[in-house]
Amino acid sequence: MISPAIALGIDFRILAEMVDDAAAAVARHVEIGSPFDGKALQTFCECCDVLTFDHELVNADALRDLAKSGRVVRPSPDVVTLVQDKLRQRQTLDALGCPIPPFHAVGSIDDLEGFAERHGWPVVAKALRGGYDGRGVWVIQDAAEAVRVWDGAKSAGLDLMVEAWVPIEREIASLVARRPNGEIAHFPVVETVQRDGICRELVAPAQVSALVQEMATSIAARIAEAISLEGVMAVELFQVGEGLLVNELAARVHNSGHYTIEGCATSQFEQHLRAILDWPLGDTALRAPMVVTVNVLGGADGSDPSKRLADVLGIADCHVHLYGKEARPGRKLGHVTALGQDRDETLARARLAAAVLTGEAG
Amino acid sequence: MISPAIALGIDFRILAEMVDDAAAAVARHVEIGSPFDGKALQTFCECCDVLTFDHELVNADALRDLAKSGRVVRPSPDVVTLVQDKLRQRQTLDALGCPIPPFHAVGSIDDLEGFAERHGWPVVAKALRGGYDGRGVWVIQDAAEAVRVWDGAKSAGLDLMVEAWVPIEREIASLVARRPNGEIAHFPVVETVQRDGICRELVAPAQVSALVQEMATSIAARIAEAISLEGVMAVELFQVGEGLLVNELAARVHNSGHYTIEGCATSQFEQHLRAILDWPLGDTALRAPMVVTVNVLGGADGSDPSKRLADVLGIADCHVHLYGKEARPGRKLGHVTALGQDRDETLARARLAAAVLTGEAG
Repeated sequence: MISPAIALGIDFRILAEMVDDAAAAVARHVEIGSPFDGKALQTFCECCDVLTFDHELVNADALRDLAKSGRVVRPSPDVVTLVQDKLRQRQTLDALGCPIPPFHAVGSIDDLEGFAERHGWPVVAKALRGGYDGRGVWVIQDAAEAVRVWDGAKSAGLDLMVEAWVPIEREIASLVARRPNGEIAHFPVVETVQRDGICRELVAPAQVSALVQEMATSIAARIAEAISLEGVMAVELFQVGEGLLVNELAARVHNSGHYTIEGCATSQFEQHLRAILDWPLGDTALRAPMVVTVNVLGGADGSDPSKRLADVLGIADCHVHLYGKEARPGRKLGHVTALGQDRDETLARARLAAAVLTGEAG
Repeated sequence: MISPAIALGIDFRILAEMVDDAAAAVARHVEIGSPFDGKALQTFCECCDVLTFDHELVNADALRDLAKSGRVVRPSPDVVTLVQDKLRQRQTLDALGCPIPPFHAVGSIDDLEGFAERHGWPVVAKALRGGYDGRGVWVIQDAAEAVRVWDGAKSAGLDLMVEAWVPIEREIASLVARRPNGEIAHFPVVETVQRDGICRELVAPAQVSALVQEMATSIAARIAEAISLEGVMAVELFQVGEGLLVNELAARVHNSGHYTIEGCATSQFEQHLRAILDWPLGDTALRAPMVVTVNVLGGADGSDPSKRLADVLGIADCHVHLYGKEARPGRKLGHVTALGQDRDETLARARLAAAVLTGEAG
């Protein structure tokens, strides 16, 4: 968000846990403190007109206190609380009539097995809080595995819920922005290609029917309105046949929107700033018929992709983002976005760039 | 340059004269010091692999000493010296066979009057150093005015040169990048609309013949090669009939290239970073058939355009940049860039946005 903030002349400050956090390493005004520390949050936002987040691991109760004392928190503490808890998300989506897989809270191993008996194996167990990139999600094939997951979760102090497993044809995401005055803007629906629970590739626009696009967009709009969203929200969806099921919500700029930086007239980052400042939302039209983003994950040898930067910059209309994080195998260290005319050609170009950066290609 | 540096993971530091200079106000690592202070430059660049500039008001002798001691200075101190001195520019361009107006050094009032007798009134007197935005340039109609300009320059301690006045049809600029290995990349030729010596609007691509475009591009390439340019350079040109004359060089990112931020696949700022780091140069294709940039100059009432930001953000595909400078009448405070299909429509959209920001439109 720093780049559009600079362009628009928005004065901003960063609260970071560590001085070498990605945003802290490049921003002018940085405070070091934990987003779980209510006191740190309070001190930090004394000089801020609006408080926002780029992740949801924040002390929501402290946010509620701040909002009560007159601070502007966007999205609202209620929305933060909602996205922090997968069961609460499911219950809210269910109450809104959004299509979701069958689900149930898990208070005992009997809940887990009873659900599987009703809906059939496999089932998907999820930790209610704190999961990301495939962590905190278990596909359970049978009763024996259910016991192992339940025991593991109990000893780790994790609360669980369970969902029916669905035969996912494709995962897509619908990114929406809403400002306090009610204006809503949608980004083009994007396909998110996952591997091992980690988003690896984005293809925009998603190669789905007009009907699926329309459904994805209207589901996102309905949720945004119902929760009085202020900011950007990603709605992750499963396509099952020609139907859609909501997977998860993220009420912030999101990995599935990284393609918008070069790919859309307005990036998700600028859009989030506009939304939380209650400014008119920007044009979200695609800048090219096809936009592909490939995430750069740390290679097995732990080498730094920035050392191979010069090898990829010659690839036409391919844009490299490195996050300045220490290289570790499997860690998201950056992404590349390619613009083009044709899906396969654009995908190949973006994949090549990512492979060169991770050292998997010459 | 900060935004592409962040995206590419380039660690950078800023030497600024004041803490509230535009770049200093938003960068993480800032040293305060004068670019004329050799000692400040030396200390500053001890932790830098490459030293570059976003203006040419720098102590070139100090740069030469740094380069001799092994520091990497790009563009080279010789290029900095060249662009600092308008007479030296003219002599260099003349030696390269580039088309330029007749010119002469002015050591006395007789030189000025003798030149006018040979080439006819009016003539254009220019201060050799330090002029910008129309300052340091005088169109002289007759001998009496010549005496006034000469006396004024002498009492201000300015060295002068004189050029023939030419009937300019249009001003255009050719922005070129060259890296140390010799690779060159051209941006689309852009029309630069000046008012009172200040660049007010950019229209890309310039609405000129293919021949004029080709000439502008090949002139820029010839100069870039001859001076072993490292970085981005703007070549400002006068179109006179179907002919071109070089006006001025700026060996840095330039106001005439601001349209590239949203308008081209690679911005001039990223291109400059690639060039000085000897990385492959980026794709410069236009992102839309028509890209128009309008500068935002401080209005007569001295009011801050950022207060009217929300009023312009609803204008479609129109991108606002505010530089965070204190508002003063006539000062360049920002710019807006609009992308579109049609010249007149895109120009109207960008002008409207600029007018709203400066308070000249509702």
